[in-house]
Amino acid sequence: MATKVTAPSQNWQELVARKQSECKQKIPSEWTLSTDLLAVPSRLLEHNLPRRSGLLSELELDLTENYTATQLLAKLASGEASSLAVTTAFCKRAAIAQQVTSCLTETFFPEALERAKSLDAYLQREGKPIGPLHGLPISIKDSFNVKGLQSTIGYVEFLKHEPATTNSALVELLLALGAVLYVKTNIPQTMMTGDSDNNIFGRTLNPHNTSLTAGGSSGGEGALVAFRGSILGVGTDIAGSIRIPALCCGVYGFKPTTSRVPFGGQVSGALEGTPIVAPSAGPLGHSVSDLQLFMNAVIGDGHAWRYDQTAAAVPWNQSQPAKFKNNESLTIGVLSEDKQFPLHPPVKRALQNAVEKLERAGHTIVSIKNDTEDDLSVAYANRVGFQYFVYGPHIDNIAPSGEPPVESVAKHASPMFTGPWPVDMELDTFEKIQKLHEARSRISDAWRQTWVEQKLDVIIAPGAQNTAVAYDTFGWPPYSLIWNVLDYPACIIPFGKASKELDPTEMKTADSVQPDYIPGEVDGAPCAIQVVTARFQDEACLQVADIIDRAIRN
Amino acid sequence: MATKVTAPSQNWQELVARKQSECKQKIPSEWTLSTDLLAVPSRLLEHNLPRRSGLLSELELDLTENYTATQLLAKLASGEASSLAVTTAFCKRAAIAQQVTSCLTETFFPEALERAKSLDAYLQREGKPIGPLHGLPISIKDSFNVKGLQSTIGYVEFLKHEPATTNSALVELLLALGAVLYVKTNIPQTMMTGDSDNNIFGRTLNPHNTSLTAGGSSGGEGALVAFRGSILGVGTDIAGSIRIPALCCGVYGFKPTTSRVPFGGQVSGALEGTPIVAPSAGPLGHSVSDLQLFMNAVIGDGHAWRYDQTAAAVPWNQSQPAKFKNNESLTIGVLSEDKQFPLHPPVKRALQNAVEKLERAGHTIVSIKNDTEDDLSVAYANRVGFQYFVYGPHIDNIAPSGEPPVESVAKHASPMFTGPWPVDMELDTFEKIQKLHEARSRISDAWRQTWVEQKLDVIIAPGAQNTAVAYDTFGWPPYSLIWNVLDYPACIIPFGKASKELDPTEMKTADSVQPDYIPGEVDGAPCAIQVVTARFQDEACLQVADIIDRAIRN
Repeated sequence: MATKVTAPSQNWQELVARKQSECKQKIPSEWTLSTDLLAVPSRLLEHNLPRRSGLLSELELDLTENYTATQLLAKLASGEASSLAVTTAFCKRAAIAQQVTSCLTETFFPEALERAKSLDAYLQREGKPIGPLHGLPISIKDSFNVKGLQSTIGYVEFLKHEPATTNSALVELLLALGAVLYVKTNIPQTMMTGDSDNNIFGRTLNPHNTSLTAGGSSGGEGALVAFRGSILGVGTDIAGSIRIPALCCGVYGFKPTTSRVPFGGQVSGALEGTPIVAPSAGPLGHSVSDLQLFMNAVIGDGHAWRYDQTAAAVPWNQSQPAKFKNNESLTIGVLSEDKQFPLHPPVKRALQNAVEKLERAGHTIVSIKNDTEDDLSVAYANRVGFQYFVYGPHIDNIAPSGEPPVESVAKHASPMFTGPWPVDMELDTFEKIQKLHEARSRISDAWRQTWVEQKLDVIIAPGAQNTAVAYDTFGWPPYSLIWNVLDYPACIIPFGKASKELDPTEMKTADSVQPDYIPGEVDGAPCAIQVVTARFQDEACLQVADIIDRAIRN
Repeated sequence: MATKVTAPSQNWQELVARKQSECKQKIPSEWTLSTDLLAVPSRLLEHNLPRRSGLLSELELDLTENYTATQLLAKLASGEASSLAVTTAFCKRAAIAQQVTSCLTETFFPEALERAKSLDAYLQREGKPIGPLHGLPISIKDSFNVKGLQSTIGYVEFLKHEPATTNSALVELLLALGAVLYVKTNIPQTMMTGDSDNNIFGRTLNPHNTSLTAGGSSGGEGALVAFRGSILGVGTDIAGSIRIPALCCGVYGFKPTTSRVPFGGQVSGALEGTPIVAPSAGPLGHSVSDLQLFMNAVIGDGHAWRYDQTAAAVPWNQSQPAKFKNNESLTIGVLSEDKQFPLHPPVKRALQNAVEKLERAGHTIVSIKNDTEDDLSVAYANRVGFQYFVYGPHIDNIAPSGEPPVESVAKHASPMFTGPWPVDMELDTFEKIQKLHEARSRISDAWRQTWVEQKLDVIIAPGAQNTAVAYDTFGWPPYSLIWNVLDYPACIIPFGKASKELDPTEMKTADSVQPDYIPGEVDGAPCAIQVVTARFQDEACLQVADIIDRAIRN
């Protein structure tokens, strides 16, 4: 009792060991991989473990590999596939993914299968699906509350919390739409790094190359979706947390405008109510049309406010402007590279390649002049965003349990090597808030002007400075956070691969924060582009993303 | 020089005298009223001064009296009426209104007439109107910047400011849509009282009864529109500032959800960026359909964001739900009287009368159980709202010039006689912000639940505890602020009149803040009801307001 004052009241390793054991036991023994199957190569996707494992039937391999969510829903609605069969297939595949990538936190396979059965019975009894997501398994980030499960978001301290007694608003809504939830997915300690690593659930590995990060903070989703252990997943994004895992893992990801998808009722561990760069929830999936499917189902006629008082009662507008429908030439703004965040060669190549294909498809490309340090600058917007993250009181959810910070957290990556604080940190709180607000408003207004003056239909940009990189080197996410600062919707389209043949020369960044380009390390990692529209133009963002996606694959 | 330190650097009375003289000189001498015409009775509207004055032609009387904005626009678009004729008519009538109600701050009649001429020329040349508001005069609250004019918002100190060099976003948008601006309208010192009274432009009088307040803070709009010196006006509302003048002056007024109508680029005199109950801009007019006209033109396909980065790019959805179109029975929630803010008998009678007519029209009336002190309580929501107004630093724009506070400002009305601060005022700033946010979120969630559980289509409520009352007695606006706290759209429908015959008994309020009911004093004052929908359901709010408006006039 002599150490009472300073020592944590419980041994954190014991708490973790108990949780890990519980999680392990929840994976049915018949779905666990033998030791030889667990010895996988780093290029996991190429290895095709689901087939090798023998755990999935041909039907289950087919259901998890050969359809979009939209196609699966058609099968489910017609009864051609039962929800039990589809859910079983994805549960099995998720269980396999978990054993080789640590992409999951909570699993609840028995409950999912029960629900699938009851939905099958409903369809049989009523002759129609219960809702637009009837019977479809959907994975969801750990921060969402699901009744009966913990939401520890990677904090050992939160292992002391009771299981949730209520569902997050989006969970309620997804269930009302007919979805089947079956797993919650892994995140970084603090949910604020590009490595989904924590002391409870371990590090999520990238299935393209397990020596690379899967990204964060919705890294579990990225890995699980890439593994096709999920057809459609839900992440959240305050600085890139949907888009970074999407681009690291080579899947599609969409960060909507805040308040369009119900965000309420999640566990955050942060202060609420202070002026912030606000997060939003959105989908990760295998195609633009599956992202649209999610947004259309969740937002629908604007019913989201019935589940969450913070959600805007704004319908999802499915009608396309004539310009899009008729495949007219679009005016596409291309974000310039910020010299302080130089693009890794594969990222630059992917973007240039996309630009060339879009020009060839008849679109007009305009360069956005934002390569100077002003209100349009990526670096400046990032410093404003970063100051929003840190100007308020810091709540430490790590120390209380005695767990150490994981390495990506300990590194404290920030964009502050690019310049000074936008606002004097010594100012009184209210003055600081006002000046931050002014700085952000000027940024928003500069972008508004650019948009109008250059007659932009859409902006394309890199999603990050780099591809997935080695563990704990991801650094700061400049090319995603800027759109959170602006609250613009942004969609990641996977496009191309890093190649040590095409880009053989190492590139060092001048700072000690951002990753260097090391050709051999990231060879084969997915590349991506980012498609951006103005605030509340989520429908247009995905409509144009679809047009662009088709154009660049030609 | 001995008084240098404490005395104001300029004599405030001199500044005011100069401004008043300038304003007076801007009214053409041929539009000024002779002394005998200025001797008007208190029931100004019944007196019919525009006709008596002989200043308006028969055509001008007809144009200002006999049409809705929608009808005028049809005449303007077809060329049946010229913008010059319509603008001249409203300029004259506004000039008359100003001389007997002090409803204006800045006038710019010559510029308006020039613009009208150029629009007429455009129509003749192009054979089509320039936009959906082609040629229509629209009045606008003083807080909006119009190039070349001051925006003093009733502070003598602001007389030292240069004229605006840019237009507010909404001004730009209205001009782009074809509107003609001609006057800015009067407000209270601080823009935070129910009396539009200040030391520069004086007190706006209520044209129904000049011994009563015209309401505030958009009181100049209320008086001008009631006088038909404007067919459509623009106010702003943070606690009732559109709705209070509307109900005091017997006109229609609509407070939209924040961010739907461009609000940016106004003069406020307050700190920005801190968490607040946010204001919104919206129309005052003569019918629900004219309010719809305004919203449809301004919001349109969602173009507002092109003018104002704070505006949401959400289109105005003109399609009506089948339920509304087919005149089906609606479920109408009726807000209960808060015992701490007892309704004046004429207000209660108007509401009961409306409820009876709505029941008779086949609608289902459900009572909202919010008469206890909990998250649904009007008094509690008002204390949360009030605390949002005062928890931050106070910026004093009155003292610097040496002017005294006007009486309604000096009174410091507040809802704090109803209970304690919702959040401990001694807390640290961030904790206070968080706890205020939590309190407000609980209120929002309680209302969301009520809405869903009771299957409400709409809520009707009183717009205020009282009608227009004697100068500087309006007090605190509990029944309007609650919807700002919730950010719900709300529409005032004028309905009935106070009557000393029907409600002969005086009613004293127990507090020293809110006005007593004095039958003889308010006899003949307009009554009103308030129609409310949930956040972002502005379209539904006006669609139902139209249904209700028709039903209660049967």
